[in-house]
Amino acid sequence: MASICLTRFNGIRRFTLLLRLVYDSHMEKIYPFESLQKFTKEVFKYMGCPEDQIDLATEVLLNADLRGIDSHGIARLSGYFRLWEAKRINAKPNVRIVHETPSTAVVDGDGGLGLVVAPKAMEIAIQKAKVAGTGWVAVKNSNHFGIAGHHAMMALEHDMIGMAMTNASPLVAPTFSVERLLGTNPIAVAIPADKQPPFVADFATTTAANGKLEILQRKNKDAPVGWIQTKDGKPSTNPHELKEGGALIPLGSDREHGSHKGFCLGAWVDIFSAVLSGANYGPWVPPFVSFLAPPADPVGEGIGHFLGAMRVDAFRPASEFKSHMDNWITRFRSAKTIASEPKLIIPGDPEREMTTERLASGIPLNEKVIEDLKQLGQKIGASL
Amino acid sequence: MASICLTRFNGIRRFTLLLRLVYDSHMEKIYPFESLQKFTKEVFKYMGCPEDQIDLATEVLLNADLRGIDSHGIARLSGYFRLWEAKRINAKPNVRIVHETPSTAVVDGDGGLGLVVAPKAMEIAIQKAKVAGTGWVAVKNSNHFGIAGHHAMMALEHDMIGMAMTNASPLVAPTFSVERLLGTNPIAVAIPADKQPPFVADFATTTAANGKLEILQRKNKDAPVGWIQTKDGKPSTNPHELKEGGALIPLGSDREHGSHKGFCLGAWVDIFSAVLSGANYGPWVPPFVSFLAPPADPVGEGIGHFLGAMRVDAFRPASEFKSHMDNWITRFRSAKTIASEPKLIIPGDPEREMTTERLASGIPLNEKVIEDLKQLGQKIGASL
Repeated sequence: MASICLTRFNGIRRFTLLLRLVYDSHMEKIYPFESLQKFTKEVFKYMGCPEDQIDLATEVLLNADLRGIDSHGIARLSGYFRLWEAKRINAKPNVRIVHETPSTAVVDGDGGLGLVVAPKAMEIAIQKAKVAGTGWVAVKNSNHFGIAGHHAMMALEHDMIGMAMTNASPLVAPTFSVERLLGTNPIAVAIPADKQPPFVADFATTTAANGKLEILQRKNKDAPVGWIQTKDGKPSTNPHELKEGGALIPLGSDREHGSHKGFCLGAWVDIFSAVLSGANYGPWVPPFVSFLAPPADPVGEGIGHFLGAMRVDAFRPASEFKSHMDNWITRFRSAKTIASEPKLIIPGDPEREMTTERLASGIPLNEKVIEDLKQLGQKIGASL
Repeated sequence: MASICLTRFNGIRRFTLLLRLVYDSHMEKIYPFESLQKFTKEVFKYMGCPEDQIDLATEVLLNADLRGIDSHGIARLSGYFRLWEAKRINAKPNVRIVHETPSTAVVDGDGGLGLVVAPKAMEIAIQKAKVAGTGWVAVKNSNHFGIAGHHAMMALEHDMIGMAMTNASPLVAPTFSVERLLGTNPIAVAIPADKQPPFVADFATTTAANGKLEILQRKNKDAPVGWIQTKDGKPSTNPHELKEGGALIPLGSDREHGSHKGFCLGAWVDIFSAVLSGANYGPWVPPFVSFLAPPADPVGEGIGHFLGAMRVDAFRPASEFKSHMDNWITRFRSAKTIASEPKLIIPGDPEREMTTERLASGIPLNEKVIEDLKQLGQKIGASL
């Protein structure tokens, strides 16, 4: 879901922000991180989440806003609330291991917020890795888990490599298909370094994530060919095409450019997240929105995630590994680039820079999101 | 490297074969599998490989030809021979574990053929998985390992999921780079089913593998925009561009279509294969051809692989998992498709069909490959 590169580097980012001020200033307002944090906690408290889960869910949700993945942050809060109202999210889940071996576990999320279930499952993967070298946890009976990168990054402070995947509501048509059979099924891989910041890849296995279409919709702009197709499988540039029965396209855009590989990636995520765990897979994955009913013939429970942690020193001394990661990152960052681009971007750089900026200057929210949150605030007696 | 779909389905494949007969019949000759097997064994015997490694290396190498990944099969044999002549391949390696935990190991390939080192390392991953639930083996000091899919598929008969990755000689420019910093770094994932054949994805993390360029070179045809770039990073359709300092492009083709995600994939493979194991990574990976010298300032030993095995019943009962995989595969295979395509292709289908056909009808070799092998045969006193 998250692009590794929402903004490309400081210079262009500043320019982009300036442009956005010019064109979008009537549509956006900047909120300090702390005020969004306070509001989010009040919502989760109203839903009846236990105290420790309120903090955890808030941290995970807002990490998306801090990292610039606006589609996965507070913009989703009212959606979670409506799913809770519809009794499709359990605010007091008993997240538990239902099967395990030294290096694996299956976790039942008990219908809880994925924002809570996924970090708890990742904690189990990390504990397994401490003993067995690696830990791999498949999760069933969960919900949308925010940004994959958050969970993968939990491994970093333990000198571990972290991985996170999740399946998602079907919006993607595999190569040659006109049916939507897969979600945007993201993969995140977080790898520690020493003096350099960590390598953090976090990306949807589609050409473009749904959040990018939403930006085009707001701006009344066409999408590039290769992002979406019509309900008959023809190329489309209409960012509203999904509402007409169209679909997102796997990474690669078309067969000639490797969309079958993007399909492989999305399928891999679906199978690891849901067929291994006992969650719903493929077209059976329940929708993230309360106004669409889940399929009447489920093949599992809720949606599924797959989380992994590998102790670096299960392979070689951590100091040696991290020093070579510094060398890897430094070499790639200093690569000769095309004339228009001053440097190669290491996965994780743009999101880290965005976090620094947003913690300092606040988080811009779109007017529709603000309106949505204000309505939610009125309902629960909290103000944004 | 391997496309999941060299041919798309029976109808089109037959048509493609017919076309090839019309256009290429002067350039190709069909050899029975057994005669290629006999010849290959004689070459490895001449090199001094131990008896059991001769059989293993031959099986792995020719599995590429059977599966239709012609660029990775017997076409590479004389290249391996020349690397052995240049003392860059050790025909009698002592493949050994140099570090381990319950679920991990690092294997030193002792400069052996990757065709031998990788399956031995995969065997270790499988043994680890039997005890710990999963097994993950990083390999250093190895060479080209044939097709990734072969090694991943070794897990299937144990009701395990198999994974295989390798780094490779730098031919790929990350997004915005004009330098070639990564190989085509393939990923293979093999997942068992019950009545359905297994799901086997095996793909280069580039838009197109180098083998596809070679086909275009032979046919004097242009490449599609998005496969390659010039030495200045401009789009190119010249299939000979790599010889002019150009580069292959990560899956996604350009920034707008997600090439930064393909870069993430290739980087992930590079780091798992080589930074974890202690092999050479990025631009330091030694070239696969004997006429190019390895970098004078290595950062590790040889090239690296990463292999994994996960016991399905470390997550849920194998029968339950495999029955759901049958359901997954059946549902996807029966998806409604675009008008021109009768069915959706499940990863692994085309290669399996190709294997059946080539075992029955023989393996077509290009005239240049035949000439190369005949020269090799003369050198060692064997006839093709």
